[in-house]
Amino acid sequence: MKLYDSAFAPNPRRVRMFLAEKGIAVPMQAVDLASLQQKAPEFSAVNPLQRIPALALDSGEVLTESVAICRYFEELQPAPPLFGESALEKARVEMWQRRAELEFFLPIAQAFRHSHPAMREMEKPQIAELAQTSRPRAVAFARFLDAELSQRPYLAGETFTIADITAFVAAEFARFARITFPDELVHLARWRAGIAARPSAAA
Amino acid sequence: MKLYDSAFAPNPRRVRMFLAEKGIAVPMQAVDLASLQQKAPEFSAVNPLQRIPALALDSGEVLTESVAICRYFEELQPAPPLFGESALEKARVEMWQRRAELEFFLPIAQAFRHSHPAMREMEKPQIAELAQTSRPRAVAFARFLDAELSQRPYLAGETFTIADITAFVAAEFARFARITFPDELVHLARWRAGIAARPSAAA
Repeated sequence: MKLYDSAFAPNPRRVRMFLAEKGIAVPMQAVDLASLQQKAPEFSAVNPLQRIPALALDSGEVLTESVAICRYFEELQPAPPLFGESALEKARVEMWQRRAELEFFLPIAQAFRHSHPAMREMEKPQIAELAQTSRPRAVAFARFLDAELSQRPYLAGETFTIADITAFVAAEFARFARITFPDELVHLARWRAGIAARPSAAA
Repeated sequence: MKLYDSAFAPNPRRVRMFLAEKGIAVPMQAVDLASLQQKAPEFSAVNPLQRIPALALDSGEVLTESVAICRYFEELQPAPPLFGESALEKARVEMWQRRAELEFFLPIAQAFRHSHPAMREMEKPQIAELAQTSRPRAVAFARFLDAELSQRPYLAGETFTIADITAFVAAEFARFARITFPDELVHLARWRAGIAARPSAAA
């Protein structure tokens, strides 16, 4: 088994945090996004969609998509549960994971991809207006999240889940998209500080 | 239990197809997106993110996000399995569900939202360039899907799953985004015709 990883990008970080929370070690191979190594023939043969991360299994099969890779490890080693346990918990985690991804991670990623000089070769054309409209969307979701986090410790309830990983990694990446969150979002700040203090945040 | 639904939009259709495949009947309440009923105070109290579908449980809790609602029903009634059964199957389904959503459904939805006159009030501002760059992305994924579907009957393997629902609903919706798929994608066409013939496609 081998995980194709990249230090800078937010998606591989989600998988590294997930594995660290599970206490699972997987051999890693770095792919250099700065030199567009993900578009070279060697890696395109691993993942034709040219995205990181990718998990090559011993059978030769390759799993891609961060959440799919995480779910595979959740099924192999359920403890600690990071996708919920009961039907209702699983649905709540999925709901928050998707909200975090579609309403927060996605606009932050779009703001980055469509404004950062480092993305000039990867995102053609960069659409400045999309970066501009994505930033307030991310901040609006941060406000919504702050109100939710005034009521409970984590996004989906009393325990840390993959939804927290997605939202935390997105929040951390926001500065590269020139997005800052208002100081008055104290519940969001408390939640971020708590996650930043977990050993998995350094993974 | 009550499902807030809307006839025209693709996301509620995914849930209706999923429920039809499971043979589950849920009381529905229509929300009229054309008159922006999803933004009115009544529905905002149900889902503050103002999105359809939403599932109100008897406890008063509300689940949103199509895939989260589907997963809830999968957990309550596993047969027929639409998210996979083994760890590897579950990971494969998740991978294809996410590819279908992020590489196909999303660019199709963006092309629609950023070009269709009916979306003028909902998507401010409409970014014409985003619609233009989203269309070839959707067609490129259709080509990739066609090659994959030359090797097996469904996206994630031998059986129909939620990944097929997502990709099928997206493909059907593409015409509203003025996206057409090349005639030479015969495997895609075979797969689409097979799903269109399922009773759930009329749900």
